[in-house]
Amino acid sequence: MNTFGTLFRITTFGESHGPGIGVVIDGCPAGLAVSDEQIQAALDRRRPGQSDLTTPRAEADRVEVQSGIFRGETTGTPISLYIRNQDQHSHDYSHIEHAYRPSHADYTYDQKYGRRDFRGGGRSSARETAARVAAGAVAQQLLNQQAIKVNSYVSQVGAVAVPVSYEQLDLSLIDTNLVRCPHPETAERMADLIRQTRDRHDTVGGLVTGVVQGLPAGLGEPVFDKLHSELGRAMLGINAVKGFEYGSGFAGTLLFGSEHNDAFYTDEAGRVRTRTNHSGGIQGGISNGQDVYFRVAFKPVATILQPQSTINDQNEAVTLAGRGRHDPCVLPRAVPIVDAMTSLVLADMLLRARGNRV
Amino acid sequence: MNTFGTLFRITTFGESHGPGIGVVIDGCPAGLAVSDEQIQAALDRRRPGQSDLTTPRAEADRVEVQSGIFRGETTGTPISLYIRNQDQHSHDYSHIEHAYRPSHADYTYDQKYGRRDFRGGGRSSARETAARVAAGAVAQQLLNQQAIKVNSYVSQVGAVAVPVSYEQLDLSLIDTNLVRCPHPETAERMADLIRQTRDRHDTVGGLVTGVVQGLPAGLGEPVFDKLHSELGRAMLGINAVKGFEYGSGFAGTLLFGSEHNDAFYTDEAGRVRTRTNHSGGIQGGISNGQDVYFRVAFKPVATILQPQSTINDQNEAVTLAGRGRHDPCVLPRAVPIVDAMTSLVLADMLLRARGNRV
Amino acid sequence: MNTFGTLFRITTFGESHGPGIGVVIDGCPAGLAVSDEQIQAALDRRRPGQSDLTTPRAEADRVEVQSGIFRGETTGTPISLYIRNQDQHSHDYSHIEHAYRPSHADYTYDQKYGRRDFRGGGRSSARETAARVAAGAVAQQLLNQQAIKVNSYVSQVGAVAVPVSYEQLDLSLIDTNLVRCPHPETAERMADLIRQTRDRHDTVGGLVTGVVQGLPAGLGEPVFDKLHSELGRAMLGINAVKGFEYGSGFAGTLLFGSEHNDAFYTDEAGRVRTRTNHSGGIQGGISNGQDVYFRVAFKPVATILQPQSTINDQNEAVTLAGRGRHDPCVLPRAVPIVDAMTSLVLADMLLRARGNRV
Amino acid sequence: MNTFGTLFRITTFGESHGPGIGVVIDGCPAGLAVSDEQIQAALDRRRPGQSDLTTPRAEADRVEVQSGIFRGETTGTPISLYIRNQDQHSHDYSHIEHAYRPSHADYTYDQKYGRRDFRGGGRSSARETAARVAAGAVAQQLLNQQAIKVNSYVSQVGAVAVPVSYEQLDLSLIDTNLVRCPHPETAERMADLIRQTRDRHDTVGGLVTGVVQGLPAGLGEPVFDKLHSELGRAMLGINAVKGFEYGSGFAGTLLFGSEHNDAFYTDEAGRVRTRTNHSGGIQGGISNGQDVYFRVAFKPVATILQPQSTINDQNEAVTLAGRGRHDPCVLPRAVPIVDAMTSLVLADMLLRARGNRV
Repeated sequence: MNTFGTLFRITTFGESHGPGIGVVIDGCPAGLAVSDEQIQAALDRRRPGQSDLTTPRAEADRVEVQSGIFRGETTGTPISLYIRNQDQHSHDYSHIEHAYRPSHADYTYDQKYGRRDFRGGGRSSARETAARVAAGAVAQQLLNQQAIKVNSYVSQVGAVAVPVSYEQLDLSLIDTNLVRCPHPETAERMADLIRQTRDRHDTVGGLVTGVVQGLPAGLGEPVFDKLHSELGRAMLGINAVKGFEYGSGFAGTLLFGSEHNDAFYTDEAGRVRTRTNHSGGIQGGISNGQDVYFRVAFKPVATILQPQSTINDQNEAVTLAGRGRHDPCVLPRAVPIVDAMTSLVLADMLLRARGNRV
Repeated sequence: MNTFGTLFRITTFGESHGPGIGVVIDGCPAGLAVSDEQIQAALDRRRPGQSDLTTPRAEADRVEVQSGIFRGETTGTPISLYIRNQDQHSHDYSHIEHAYRPSHADYTYDQKYGRRDFRGGGRSSARETAARVAAGAVAQQLLNQQAIKVNSYVSQVGAVAVPVSYEQLDLSLIDTNLVRCPHPETAERMADLIRQTRDRHDTVGGLVTGVVQGLPAGLGEPVFDKLHSELGRAMLGINAVKGFEYGSGFAGTLLFGSEHNDAFYTDEAGRVRTRTNHSGGIQGGISNGQDVYFRVAFKPVATILQPQSTINDQNEAVTLAGRGRHDPCVLPRAVPIVDAMTSLVLADMLLRARGNRV
Repeated sequence: MNTFGTLFRITTFGESHGPGIGVVIDGCPAGLAVSDEQIQAALDRRRPGQSDLTTPRAEADRVEVQSGIFRGETTGTPISLYIRNQDQHSHDYSHIEHAYRPSHADYTYDQKYGRRDFRGGGRSSARETAARVAAGAVAQQLLNQQAIKVNSYVSQVGAVAVPVSYEQLDLSLIDTNLVRCPHPETAERMADLIRQTRDRHDTVGGLVTGVVQGLPAGLGEPVFDKLHSELGRAMLGINAVKGFEYGSGFAGTLLFGSEHNDAFYTDEAGRVRTRTNHSGGIQGGISNGQDVYFRVAFKPVATILQPQSTINDQNEAVTLAGRGRHDPCVLPRAVPIVDAMTSLVLADMLLRARGNRV
Repeated sequence: MNTFGTLFRITTFGESHGPGIGVVIDGCPAGLAVSDEQIQAALDRRRPGQSDLTTPRAEADRVEVQSGIFRGETTGTPISLYIRNQDQHSHDYSHIEHAYRPSHADYTYDQKYGRRDFRGGGRSSARETAARVAAGAVAQQLLNQQAIKVNSYVSQVGAVAVPVSYEQLDLSLIDTNLVRCPHPETAERMADLIRQTRDRHDTVGGLVTGVVQGLPAGLGEPVFDKLHSELGRAMLGINAVKGFEYGSGFAGTLLFGSEHNDAFYTDEAGRVRTRTNHSGGIQGGISNGQDVYFRVAFKPVATILQPQSTINDQNEAVTLAGRGRHDPCVLPRAVPIVDAMTSLVLADMLLRARGNRV
């Protein structure tokens, strides 16, 4: 299904080259101040054509609020946000109508549905994530009310990695460079790598690190809907994502229990803290009031401007090369998507936590 | 909520030291042959006390089928499986009634619910996973019908890792040693590491690799409920899991697109194949007919038999040491849990795929 | 939530006097032939301004297909249908901004959400049902494939009732008169009553009878999601509905068991039949292959063009009279809504039944 | 699916003559005082063998709390309640193994699932409602906290009806007679009718009226999950129910709008009231603070101790007569079931209302 969330719930729709894409948000409480500008600002961060590091396609991505907001506040009824596609008829996609691009969803959609809207990737296009970003901007407002801060940034491109942990970074620098990496020197090197890759008609992957600060303890549902299970599911639902880890993650498997455990203490202000945070702010699936942090692995974009061997829908060998304008690296534009999905998960968990106690 | 799955749906209940734990399976199609023995066999793989590598607690974990199976076949009505707890009153848990064990769920449950059943970890105990394993055995039967094979094995303990990929292993060897690692020499070294760790009163983590073979193309839902999103969510919902990756995973971020893409071809038998399988058998969230494989990171068990600093529910500093008998390494017993959750996800996706086409 | 259905699932959005209303259909199988004209035809049946019996408001209600249909067939992805509101700014609703219309949702929305979009009833307006009718037209296509026929008609207006059962009527006559009653003489008398009521600035209610023919046995889920529970829920979710009965209904309470039971027999063609059909084609919540029939009670429309005593949002007594153009009787326009909701329930049940057996 | 409710959610399981039946309650907030005795008391009201008006079968129906309650309070984790069946092997059901009882679920289960547990009706047995009653007792505790009062009573048996409305009755008299009718003279006549019917080896139906007092305004979800839609669905999900109406119901269709509308006013205490209550306390699907009342139609029990013509699973004509001990009239025992389902709907709506506003 195309629905995400239990109480703060979104349903997205739309294909890359149909009339438009959109999202219906259901379950947003009444009385939340939301402006078109806030939603538009989030969309602008995801928009293509922002720099020479991303696809030069220029899409305005103007959001239209179709329902659910009255006099600047949510009414409690469904909020429908719509983004019209532009120039959707101007491209020629005949080369992929019958051929399967390697590592794309062409073949699997055909296997599942017996057909697909092949224009620009149709429903499997990353364009669909614009709808999530728009919805995430509304969720974000709910978090702002409680001073919960969500940030994510590019922490690795190919083999170029930020050498320090998030705690040693100034997260306000994220949007000061094209890569969305708050470590300026590394950002430079990442940008260089992306440009070189682009010039070779190739693509490159990397990591996004997400950080949530100010989250109260008690969010997340035990057993199946753990806070990190829902975050992981949300991240793995983003196009091109191959892995998710939180807290100590995969590296934590190398520690012994005596090294990994986070000792509780009470700080001078009387707040409960842990001396380390290998738990990533989550214990037993429930937030413990410490920072939540996680890492998301993105594979290199599958569309490359080089000829590749593949098959067509008659199972015959053909050669295919990407056409048009594509991102050599999705990481910079993935940052607002990670932010949006994080915000959506947290908004949902905040509402679910209202049922914790009588 | 304590429910997992959309169409093949399980709801688990029960605390570690209450009367028992159980699961209700709803949505299992009628006419599936299921025997008590099959379910019991799966539980026996997860049972504590199997060897000196796991907790010496001896629990019989006998399953009782309370409904939904008649004359050896499912009837289409809910299948309730119940496992009575044994000796649940014999232990003394007063030391953790008011103190928070480091990196456990004690503190977060109290923050969320304002109370908890502290006996043996209550609902946050890994004992709850026995219910999942029982349900997984029923899901497994549905997969068997279609010759879908699910296997998982311990691929790393601490820094001791299997040196080859799953394709170079004989997966029928998984249960031939105590560690459940089908690479005998590595299994030996893992067992040594676990014993050393246990003797130091410490614990160690590691990785489980999951492999699905024979999966038809077309399973998985685009956008949010991608096959790998659901697998990831399922794995992250297992106690002690810190990360999930599938196909090329985190390492895939180091490849360029031209290296990472999986070229399609048609083999001699006319089957569609890919020359590499960085995709891990999933493209656009939907299975493509190749092997699905993934890795799951488990942190070292939080309960260690050493004194640790922590706080109590008055926020006062206290010292706490684990008591009783605990696993120095959960990995061997995690294997049947990974199998069960994988089977549950796939059974659900098989049923969901019935709605793909008119 | 604003979502209806489990597998064939719709989410509606939009307010009466916002930019528009719409619906997202999720779960419709791929490969279903659907044309804009089919959807438009269903909307045209519900449209206001069709005759002097309904509101003279003229709204075009043009549907725009925003996604999910490609080359005349569903793709398996969400189908978004949008209907732009017209002249939504031309009316003056200031008289109800602060006053609560009797037997409307004004007061309860304010109590629930602390605010409401008061223009034309906002989200509680019957205008929202246009979205359901559009979605129902898609569901209808799924039923057509299996030769399942859904019909409903006005069987009573005020005290004027059709004197015979549905079996004695020619249901092809439903749309041959303005009232949508297939019993021509009664239709005349109903039309007279509606005109008289309108001229008295009053409103009148009545009954709609629904009939489903050609439904296969085995649809419906036991226990909570019985076929008639879902039909009842669907009907009770239509504005102004006060009651639902199926088969023998309320009158059946007057029969003894020996009179009420439907004896099974096998007809000449070898088909299983029942001699009577007090069960209304449903036994134990599951269809038995006989006709399904039910009745839906609609109260008289709350908006009357007479002054009424009420209170404002300061709890002060005020007098209020309906303004503008309103339906004196919703029954004729309720018929396509009953058809739509019936089709949506059945489409959902058809998909759910795919999971019945291995 | 066998799950009811969105946030206060129950899943029932079990067959009439398997080991037992049960229910898992998920989503009940932590900190609710619940005792085994409260649950048992509710079950005792539904238990067979209470008087000569109901089946003389004597079942103890002892509830076992398997999880979710610790030291007399809910913990926020799933509450599992189990009721062991007694003497489940002592009866002979061979006569219905292959024959279809008229107006029972035998035929439809076979059509749906291709098999059924025929012993005592299996899953379609009214015995399953014991699980709902047990769960309803927990929901009831949540309502008690807010002084919401749920009552229902038998208002009609066959043609014998209570001659006054619920407002003129003393609802504390409901349990003072065997019929559960708070109008003593009518109760006598009802009892007589039931006895006469029983002696004729026949069965009789009737009506249950439900009343909810003290419900705050603002409960219920607009559009699909209206308060009365959910109540209606809940009631129609009870075995033998053929119809549901609330407020003015079917009779309200005979009124004109000017007669039917409920005028708001503010009473001396400053509370918002309506002069009439044709709305049944619900406007636009949301409670308005007035009494909620509704009526539920029950058909006569299908099992009669007379020979009836029917067919077997080879579609051959056979004659079948009910055996053993059965209720001549389910109404008295339906009262606690109506109470339970009402309480479950309201508990769910109370939790859902927590998300109304920021």
